[in-house]
Order: sequence, then C-alpha cells, then structure tokens
Amino acid sequence: MSESFLLGVLGGMGPLATLDFQRRLFDATPAQRDQQQLPSVVWNVPQIADRQQALAGTGPSPLPQLIHGITRLNQAGASHIAIPCNTAHHWYDALSEASDAPILHIVDATLAALNQAADKPQRVGIIATHGTLAAGWYQQKLIAQGIEVIEPTAQELAEWFVPGCYAVKRGELDEGGALLVRQAQALFDRGAQTLILACTEVPIALAAVNAPFLPLTFDPAQALAQRCSQLWQGI
Amino acid sequence: MSESFLLGVLGGMGPLATLDFQRRLFDATPAQRDQQQLPSVVWNVPQIADRQQALAGTGPSPLPQLIHGITRLNQAGASHIAIPCNTAHHWYDALSEASDAPILHIVDATLAALNQAADKPQRVGIIATHGTLAAGWYQQKLIAQGIEVIEPTAQELAEWFVPGCYAVKRGELDEGGALLVRQAQALFDRGAQTLILACTEVPIALAAVNAPFLPLTFDPAQALAQRCSQLWQGI
Repeated sequence: MSESFLLGVLGGMGPLATLDFQRRLFDATPAQRDQQQLPSVVWNVPQIADRQQALAGTGPSPLPQLIHGITRLNQAGASHIAIPCNTAHHWYDALSEASDAPILHIVDATLAALNQAADKPQRVGIIATHGTLAAGWYQQKLIAQGIEVIEPTAQELAEWFVPGCYAVKRGELDEGGALLVRQAQALFDRGAQTLILACTEVPIALAAVNAPFLPLTFDPAQALAQRCSQLWQGI
Repeated sequence: MSESFLLGVLGGMGPLATLDFQRRLFDATPAQRDQQQLPSVVWNVPQIADRQQALAGTGPSPLPQLIHGITRLNQAGASHIAIPCNTAHHWYDALSEASDAPILHIVDATLAALNQAADKPQRVGIIATHGTLAAGWYQQKLIAQGIEVIEPTAQELAEWFVPGCYAVKRGELDEGGALLVRQAQALFDRGAQTLILACTEVPIALAAVNAPFLPLTFDPAQALAQRCSQLWQGI
C-alpha cells in the first residue's frame, strides 16, 4: 500500500452507479481493518449535461463539467483517477490532458479481465450507449484479439436499452431490469457467449432482477474497480 | 435546489458506513433524473487514527487527519459538510473552527427526527462508543426534553458492542450483527422503548441480520442524510 495513493473517482454519471463502484472498490480490497481499505475522494455531482444526448447532437457537451470535476479531484490530491462511466470515456483524451493524475481507462481494464478469463470467449456481445458503440473502442480491441463482436440493433437500443437505462436513473430497478434482460437475451440469441455490460446502469439493473445469465457477463465497472484495488495493494 | 449547494462528506470512519450514508442521501432525495440528485464530494480516506482508541487514551488523536479532510472538502467547494460518524463529533468544535462551510451536527439532526416522531418515547436507549457516551451530547439533549436515557454498561460494551463494531469494520456483518443484537436486547430489557443507534456501524449490522426490532430504532446517519437532502431540496 502506497503512502501517496489517493484514488479520485469522477462520478455522478449516474449517482447510483457511483455508489455501486465504491462498493466494488470496497469488496475488491482485502482488509482486516478500516485503515487497510483503499482511500478515495469521490466527485459525485450529477448536475452534468446528458452524455447520450450530447453525442446524439441533441444536447450541450458535458466536457466543461467533466474537466471541472477532474480539476477538483486533482486539487484534492488524487494520485490516480477512475471514471465509472463508459460513455464519458468518449472525452478521455481531453480529460487526460487536463489531469496531472493518470486516468485509468475502463476499456483497458475490461480487456485485461477478459484476457485473464479461464475460458476465453470467441463471440462477445456488447450492451452500451450509442456513444460508446459509435466510439468503437471495445469493438476495435476485441476484433484485434480475433474475437467476433455482436452489437445491439438501433431498434433494440430504442426499445430496450435506452428506456431501461433511464428507468435505472429514476431508481426504478425492476422496470429497468426487465427491459435490459430483453436486450441481453437478444444478443445471446444471436450467438454471444458472453456479454460486456458497458454501461454502468446495466449490471445494477440485471442484479436487481436476478438475471440468471449474470455469470456469463463481464462488468467493466468491476474490472476497473479491481484494477484500482490492485494499484492500491501494490500488485 | 440551490445552484451553489455541494455537500462535503467527511467519511472513512469507517469506509462502509460512508457508502451506507451515500445510499441514504440518494434514497432521501426524490429525483426523476440524475440531475435532480444531491451533489456531493466525499472524502473517504480511512487512513485515520482510531477514534475509540484515541478517546480511551491508547492511541494518537485523529484531529490532524480530520482537519486535513475538512480542508480538502472546503477546497473542493463544499457549501455544507456532514460527518457520518458519531464519535468524530467529539472534535466538532475544532473542526467547525477549521471549516468555512458549516458542519451539520449529527445529534441535532437526530433530536429533530425524534421530535417529529408520532409517538414520542419516554425512555430511550443509546448504543454508542465509549467516546460518544462520555461526550454526553445525546444524554444532555434527551434529558433536557424530559426523556429518560438508558445506556450500555461497561461490561456490555466490552463483550458485545466493541467486538461487534470491529467485526463490521472487517466486513463480517453476520458476526457483528449477532453481537449487536444482544447489546440492543439488553437495553430493551431494561425498559428502553426505542434505541438511538449512535454508531454508524450498528444499523448496517442489525439490517444484515434482519433484527426484528429495527422499526423501534432511530438512526442518526439516516436523520443526518434526511437533513442534508432537505437542505438540497430547499425545505
């Protein structure tokens, strides 16, 4: 454990996903007493322009507010920064430039976890926002490893993913879970062997409705939390 | 909702209680979308001297580390500060002096909640650390309202409360819950009509073991979260 380690969490996207990420940090860290737990400073300010609307061209950019949060976390002394929101990584390069502390990339953490799996899949489905899918980071890195990628259709996103995601943001986990289960099932039906749940609302909702296929999924927030905990533990 | 509102949370005491408090803030705030949720910056740094040992004279004071956290929260722009740890309120006056942002007092929030209860109790038990009990804030304010106070004995604290509390800090909620149920039951047996669970580990552990008497308890962390949410909502 490093004396100078302090994890900055750029959260608020959404606020519930930020709590979920903190719980994952806690669970990922073996500790017999408080003092062994990972130290963090968490910017959980959800008054930030909608990322999905911004990338669809129907709303203002969240970049100034994201940079404000990054600046505050640096001022608070963060040695590393994690962003438990896949879509916000659209602005990763600009945020990295604005940050003295290195920002861990959620896609790198996820691919590292996937590569450590005992049974490496050949066909991987991705549940994500339009913005994350359009950015293409997951697809590029998976294809580079010879893995076939199965994506939601535009109609599936409109009918299941987007309303499911916003239901979670309203705290309606059962409603959101039911919609997101349909989205997940469609990807399995098209041949996916495992799913990357690349939007932080999705695993929360699927867990809330006890989706039976959860063991077949990869959660980027979990991969990112594990990477942060390993850094703290000096692994 | 105030443009300039930003809740600073001085957490880390312990780290799990800090997560629990954030969930209470979330649940206490009616919101249809992310942007309506309470904005916060959370200092969750558990590398801080043990408060119970400090007050028992067997360890160093946590005051410098508490002031460091308060300073960081002020630098991050906090408009108000909450401390979801009863024992840390032992240093309330010194922390208030070091803070530009007002610090909400957990005892004031709890007494306000007690006074709003439909059926105001005549005999109240308190589960708390040696330090909180020795400080006497809860007792003084309850007695001033004509309420009789029932406290744990030194033997009960040593056998049930202290080991129960440290079990929670290790993440062993079932073990901690079983010990703290015995502490609670002893206070009910001596005539308490309701209990103030004045140590943030206690309600977490009692909920984990589904203690049947939970509806008969007051949780200062919950009262503090409600007060913070009301401020954000402009109530």
